[in-house]
Amino acid sequence: MTGRGDRLGTKVLVTGAAGFIGSHVVDRCLDLDFDVVALDDLSGGFPENVNRKARFVHGSVCDAAAVGALFEEERFRYVYHLAAYAAEGLSHFIRRYNYETNLIGSVNVINAAVNTGVEVLVFTSSIAVYGRNQLPMTEDLVPRPEDPYGISKYAVELDLKACHDMFGLDWIVFRPHNVYGERQNIADRYRNVIGIFMNQVLQGKPMTIFGDGRQTRAFSYIDDVAPIIARSVLHPLARNEVFNVGADTPYTVLELAHEVARAMQAPPGIVHLPSRNEVDHAYASHERLRRIFPDRRPVTTLRDGIERMAAWVRAHGPCEATRFGAIEVEKNLPPSWRAQG
Amino acid sequence: MTGRGDRLGTKVLVTGAAGFIGSHVVDRCLDLDFDVVALDDLSGGFPENVNRKARFVHGSVCDAAAVGALFEEERFRYVYHLAAYAAEGLSHFIRRYNYETNLIGSVNVINAAVNTGVEVLVFTSSIAVYGRNQLPMTEDLVPRPEDPYGISKYAVELDLKACHDMFGLDWIVFRPHNVYGERQNIADRYRNVIGIFMNQVLQGKPMTIFGDGRQTRAFSYIDDVAPIIARSVLHPLARNEVFNVGADTPYTVLELAHEVARAMQAPPGIVHLPSRNEVDHAYASHERLRRIFPDRRPVTTLRDGIERMAAWVRAHGPCEATRFGAIEVEKNLPPSWRAQG
Repeated sequence: MTGRGDRLGTKVLVTGAAGFIGSHVVDRCLDLDFDVVALDDLSGGFPENVNRKARFVHGSVCDAAAVGALFEEERFRYVYHLAAYAAEGLSHFIRRYNYETNLIGSVNVINAAVNTGVEVLVFTSSIAVYGRNQLPMTEDLVPRPEDPYGISKYAVELDLKACHDMFGLDWIVFRPHNVYGERQNIADRYRNVIGIFMNQVLQGKPMTIFGDGRQTRAFSYIDDVAPIIARSVLHPLARNEVFNVGADTPYTVLELAHEVARAMQAPPGIVHLPSRNEVDHAYASHERLRRIFPDRRPVTTLRDGIERMAAWVRAHGPCEATRFGAIEVEKNLPPSWRAQG
Repeated sequence: MTGRGDRLGTKVLVTGAAGFIGSHVVDRCLDLDFDVVALDDLSGGFPENVNRKARFVHGSVCDAAAVGALFEEERFRYVYHLAAYAAEGLSHFIRRYNYETNLIGSVNVINAAVNTGVEVLVFTSSIAVYGRNQLPMTEDLVPRPEDPYGISKYAVELDLKACHDMFGLDWIVFRPHNVYGERQNIADRYRNVIGIFMNQVLQGKPMTIFGDGRQTRAFSYIDDVAPIIARSVLHPLARNEVFNVGADTPYTVLELAHEVARAMQAPPGIVHLPSRNEVDHAYASHERLRRIFPDRRPVTTLRDGIERMAAWVRAHGPCEATRFGAIEVEKNLPPSWRAQG
């Protein structure tokens, strides 16, 4: 770790900065006294998420010319690339949009980073890269992504390695999983099960579960994720490494629904929908994270995290669920994603 | 295999049909009495390559609307997707163009195939997906692509598997390697070492070799590749399988240069350039191909194949080497790719 004095005036870019995780990374970068430029196209994020101490730039990583010009002008030292469309289940039905946003957008950032001499590019991948793999998922497993979202994230990981070998650009890859907390977009009907549940409870509707609800995930509170991502550039041993990041304990989606109902002080109404094509169980090892980031703080319990998020959601009010506009393939689209809603 | 009668009037699409391998696949599909639509944007191919018995459509797989409309109108039974920009070494410097052409273009074809009920999608991948891996390369090895070209091809392979699981679209993946023969574009300075050598000899220039020329490849004559790709849709056991396809015997690039000089009846003038970042040795197992395609004919020798191609090249005359227009990253670009000429 470098001292505070070395970091003053260090210019960094956060993409997807108005989104959920991105906005928290902006906050944690400001805590480190970085000079933060916050880029977002507001396709999924909200301007009010962006800390006013950062300089907000409205633009898309998919606009190669604008990305190139921003990098030329600002000469960033560190780049945190979080901009993405992260609806894993929906990605089968919006293949092109998925790859354009998640892969081509990333390639524009990578090109600009090489062309302007960025020191480290931090990329948020996903445990979606693992696919149906051994548990717990460790970073040494060979990824076998099974949906376009996971494939796009894995392609960017491979591209960063190729880019390091050819051009010397250092990278750090995080594979966060099932992150939740304040500022999560609870209006997105295609992803973020906790946000969907809370939005449904706020609207007096039952919580919808795909299948029997026994699928498990280790839901991760944002404060156990964003600070590590922000600090990673200051850990020399983190460079050119992949890290799982998030909570250790898996819960079933049914258990989650009961915790949400409890925190929202509502009866646990649940409706089961036909199961969809998804990984049944997913939990990740954080051994490597513990080794390289010994200052990782104790992990927030699901109950504590859900209560903090619920307090924010109750203050924030219900949202009208949004719908993705340009479905590319209608075949086998889950009925609840197709119906009015 | 189905009989000739079953195949009459079977409508198929070949993308990249004016390119080298694509145009031969068109010929072999016509041999099978298929009704062939030949799509190409002529960015790398030539209209005179396309057999006049096929219906030529001038268009790009990157134009999603045009691809969708063509599939809706024609209702193809089989699709051979060969359109790609295959300059592996250059792909580091044209990342975005590489992924737009090779991945987004493929995704447009995949979406349209699902939406119109195509029975089999045949995709030409590459041994570039293997990276620095065990030799011989077998299809069971887990790919570790190391350049944007190989990454884009592997992403499409993974996407086809995901698409099969979600939508039931059958696929066949071929990983051809170092294919050469008549109609190869010998004007492309970034790829196709045999074409480059022949063009250099025709122009009275020495042949240029990156490094010491001891890197080995199993150069594969087109007639050992295209007929298998064309027939594959008729082999039920080939569906949802990956196949290496090409020659078995590796030769050094130096040996190749001597064979080219011999066939071109020229002295073997050679200039060595600084070595570039490439795999030193590459040869593939064809055990699976032999098992599923027992009618595979004896493999053409390097001498015979080079002689046939040389006869075509001498009749065709020299070409002015073309230059790729839109380099995205200049850093570490090999000087010979940057300089005039």
